[in-house]
Amino acid sequence: MEEIRENKIEGRNAVIEAFRSGRAVDKVFVLDGCQDGPVRTIVREARKHDTVINFVGKDRLDKMSDTGKHQGVIAFAASYEYAEVEDILAKAREKGEAPFILLLDGIEDPHNLGAIIRTANLAGAHGIIIPKRRAVGLTATVAKASAGAINYTPVAKVTNLGQTIDELKEQGLWFVCADMGGTSMYELDLKGPIGVVIGNEGEGVSRLVREKCDFIASIPMKGDIDSLNASVAAGVLAFEIVRQRGC
Amino acid sequence: MEEIRENKIEGRNAVIEAFRSGRAVDKVFVLDGCQDGPVRTIVREARKHDTVINFVGKDRLDKMSDTGKHQGVIAFAASYEYAEVEDILAKAREKGEAPFILLLDGIEDPHNLGAIIRTANLAGAHGIIIPKRRAVGLTATVAKASAGAINYTPVAKVTNLGQTIDELKEQGLWFVCADMGGTSMYELDLKGPIGVVIGNEGEGVSRLVREKCDFIASIPMKGDIDSLNASVAAGVLAFEIVRQRGC
Repeated sequence: MEEIRENKIEGRNAVIEAFRSGRAVDKVFVLDGCQDGPVRTIVREARKHDTVINFVGKDRLDKMSDTGKHQGVIAFAASYEYAEVEDILAKAREKGEAPFILLLDGIEDPHNLGAIIRTANLAGAHGIIIPKRRAVGLTATVAKASAGAINYTPVAKVTNLGQTIDELKEQGLWFVCADMGGTSMYELDLKGPIGVVIGNEGEGVSRLVREKCDFIASIPMKGDIDSLNASVAAGVLAFEIVRQRGC
Repeated sequence: MEEIRENKIEGRNAVIEAFRSGRAVDKVFVLDGCQDGPVRTIVREARKHDTVINFVGKDRLDKMSDTGKHQGVIAFAASYEYAEVEDILAKAREKGEAPFILLLDGIEDPHNLGAIIRTANLAGAHGIIIPKRRAVGLTATVAKASAGAINYTPVAKVTNLGQTIDELKEQGLWFVCADMGGTSMYELDLKGPIGVVIGNEGEGVSRLVREKCDFIASIPMKGDIDSLNASVAAGVLAFEIVRQRGC
């Protein structure tokens, strides 16, 4: 993964150039109703690259703009390149280990994503999978919060987390979802090829994704409040896997 | 613990009033060289209440001020009241449990402190002890990040963490410090009355505090980077204690 410095790209030519150079563009904001040639090119490139497209009013673009010269288009590129799911599986094969992947169902806080990448690295997970929509991408803040782990642990971005789970099940992975009301994680066998699903900070794991999981693993809770911080929950569960694998 | 809304207190009378009403004041900034009656009263009250006093230049005060009328004095009150170490021990006695306390040796990030209070609550720890200096206090950001746990889990603030450890050892507690190069936490007996020391985000546990500890517990690490996020490390260690205690 190669570090890229600038995140916000303003103006038609600059955004077209970003797509053509192969940069990972997380999101593009396009002036609603704008239909000329360059804007159509941008929308086409965005669809081709599975970039999230938001059609917004002029006020919103003006507010986002640093240069005042957005020409109806502002894109946000990732600070780091995304990996492919296949790269994560290849990493497990290289090491001769059963795959161990963290799937994040909509983590929004960049500090949480950074801390989870750090945890994945140190727990020996082979990679992280995040969804394209309603989730933070590999921004500069995430990179900083990862304390360098982003350089070692691959992060893949997928359109549909449920479909990715189905595909990985065909590769022999089991899926466990961190949620309340499941089996205590101490009573589950977490040693095989495994995908661990961590939910969104506020809403937990979405219903469709939870239904794809083979088990629901619960961290035993005492206390008065509802849930751990998402990155802490990911850490506690990841290291229970480390313990069971006997590393 | 009672919620208090306003954190920043500006002006001589307001600051004197805060001390006299018994509010927990974390820090006070006083104009360097200022020696008149009210300022002397403030410095005396601050010393009496173990509040950290910073003598600073006019520029710094002007920059901190929201009102433009600081009169040479700005104080920062805690958003929540601090507990006493004795309150934490009393909570363990009430529940008929061996004391389980988290000691934070200089956590600076409010999101980390909030996440750790949340973890302490859910892991069934009886309270948290933080030092007065070089650490974030119970600010509004910490309260928010604690997701309500700050209303249930007592946080005590002490002048000297090493001395507090000595006093708690007399009460029968053992101390384990989270650090690299120690014994794997899976091989330690963490079931008795225990204090767990978590270090600062950048520098870990300070030498003087580490030397007071009975054991150094290490989280087994694979991977390429140095350390977990401090709140994740606290969570992983706290839940290993939960596992060993069989809850």
